[in-house]
Amino acid sequence: MIDETLHRIIPVTRDWVERATARQLQLTKPPGSLGVLEEIANRLAAIRQTLKPEVQRRRIYVVAGDHGVVAEGVSAYPREVTAQMVYNFLRGGAAINVLARCGGIEVRVVDAGIDADLDEAPCLIRSKVVRGTANFTRGPAMSPDEATRSVATGVELAQAAVSEGIELLGIGEMGIGNTTAASAITAALTKSAPDVVTGFGTGVDDAGLQRKILAVRRSLEINKPDRSNALDVLAKVGGAEIGVMAGMALGAAAERTPIVADGFISTSAAALACVFCPTVRDYLFIGHRSRERGHDSLIEFIGQRPLLDLQMRLGEGTGAALAMHIIGAAAQLLGEMATFAEAGVSERGN
Amino acid sequence: MIDETLHRIIPVTRDWVERATARQLQLTKPPGSLGVLEEIANRLAAIRQTLKPEVQRRRIYVVAGDHGVVAEGVSAYPREVTAQMVYNFLRGGAAINVLARCGGIEVRVVDAGIDADLDEAPCLIRSKVVRGTANFTRGPAMSPDEATRSVATGVELAQAAVSEGIELLGIGEMGIGNTTAASAITAALTKSAPDVVTGFGTGVDDAGLQRKILAVRRSLEINKPDRSNALDVLAKVGGAEIGVMAGMALGAAAERTPIVADGFISTSAAALACVFCPTVRDYLFIGHRSRERGHDSLIEFIGQRPLLDLQMRLGEGTGAALAMHIIGAAAQLLGEMATFAEAGVSERGN
Repeated sequence: MIDETLHRIIPVTRDWVERATARQLQLTKPPGSLGVLEEIANRLAAIRQTLKPEVQRRRIYVVAGDHGVVAEGVSAYPREVTAQMVYNFLRGGAAINVLARCGGIEVRVVDAGIDADLDEAPCLIRSKVVRGTANFTRGPAMSPDEATRSVATGVELAQAAVSEGIELLGIGEMGIGNTTAASAITAALTKSAPDVVTGFGTGVDDAGLQRKILAVRRSLEINKPDRSNALDVLAKVGGAEIGVMAGMALGAAAERTPIVADGFISTSAAALACVFCPTVRDYLFIGHRSRERGHDSLIEFIGQRPLLDLQMRLGEGTGAALAMHIIGAAAQLLGEMATFAEAGVSERGN
Repeated sequence: MIDETLHRIIPVTRDWVERATARQLQLTKPPGSLGVLEEIANRLAAIRQTLKPEVQRRRIYVVAGDHGVVAEGVSAYPREVTAQMVYNFLRGGAAINVLARCGGIEVRVVDAGIDADLDEAPCLIRSKVVRGTANFTRGPAMSPDEATRSVATGVELAQAAVSEGIELLGIGEMGIGNTTAASAITAALTKSAPDVVTGFGTGVDDAGLQRKILAVRRSLEINKPDRSNALDVLAKVGGAEIGVMAGMALGAAAERTPIVADGFISTSAAALACVFCPTVRDYLFIGHRSRERGHDSLIEFIGQRPLLDLQMRLGEGTGAALAMHIIGAAAQLLGEMATFAEAGVSERGN
């Protein structure tokens, strides 16, 4: 099923980028003066194959999972906070809920691997793959089958969203311990030293940071993930929510739908999706540059510029939510601005 | 009248910043994890003296004026474009109109100094101070009286907006030739060499850039503006739209209302407002970092960090419009997020 999805991901064509670029030159502004907004709009035009790309219907999936590695003392918060925060999302009290309301964005919460049984709720999607991962300092976080199922779940979620009319997807997450998993993935994919790509997460102290770095180092030594094999990296040092988000990136690309990554952890999922299929990059936006150490390495690995830099490090999709406003604005500028001819404005004199 | 306004501008108190900071620590997120959004919200709390600051009613004034210095060949576009673009604003076809629609922002267009007679229109405010400035390479751009009237006009516009219920103000502009004026203001205020703060504006070629640098240098040599006297700098090397925007920043601060500067030219007006009264800084946000050379010098002069960096250089208030979404989101986060206690989420373990 994942293989079938990978086969459906095709690169955007230069043709549409060029048509959008030509249109930009006719709009009432000096050439290039909208900067990154023009690049965004031109890419959206190529993704949607239209000069009036629509990205009004927006949805962010906040994917949650627990991590066995918390036993190594890698987080400032207790493990129960994953489920507690999920209830906060479902009641609308978290940062992502507020930002989604500001931006006209729907929120869905996905239980991909929480170590608790959650009650049904209208915006909760129950797709539990594991009850928390295993402690990856002692062996693989997930079995190959669990990892595969997490990615397949993400593909299905993206397909369902598109069939429901969603035009712009976002991925965010919640999972106590998951910056440690994202650091291990980053170290594996970018061949960086663990201490270079491991940061303070939710706010551990210096001793906690040393424990995190040690956990990342051990996870790589014990599991020896194959960086050319996304599924192997995901199973050995990843997590269920990371697999779901990677699958969503694959599914979005297969459905020709733009998708916005958020901070460090969701970008690690996007990076895995790019290992599955480098063409995912064409459909991917990185919402913001996180303050979490290691994010820059992933950004460089993927090769897309983050849209915002507001020194945030919260996750949940908060940076993606803010970036969706920028992406939507870029699309509307291309679609709605008057041309020099329409407006009766004189063009350049020289 | 300007003096009376300056006397009404009072610093925001540390007390409210501290109360907002304490509230931020109770909200369901790791301390400081919303980065710049927390700084914005805490400042809004201090400006409005409430922990639930409201910035829903937003309006951007696009202030337009012509410049005698265009006779020196400093622009890529003919002078008529100022009035032509104003008609584009009034018909809703320009970039600022699209971005205002995206962000729920009202737009008003102000004729501060256009060298043409404009017909009445619903969103046009006719407050012409001059019919274009004089060529400031040969003498002052405006008389002291004209400069004073432009600032007073801005103060009155800000007061009227606040009395109409506007909670967040933005300033943008249109004026062929006005990057040259902004460069002259920047060189005067920051004691920078003209070539360091003069850029390509709407897109002159290299010869055009040399003409601009020469015009800036001559304007300073001939007029000798007194950098400690904002009105003197404005009259000698400024412009009518710059004076109105500076007055709006003063008026907004006097009315305890946050105001967002846009790119190079509106920031030059904000810098003049800071020379009139340094406390204006407390009420001022810089919407984005423009690609126009010289903007960085003004940003450093004012000492506020721009909220966005999207490589834009259009003006019109386009960067301010996008930044208003960030500012509004910051306010709503502080006002609407649940606390740890309300949400039943465990606090830090260590």
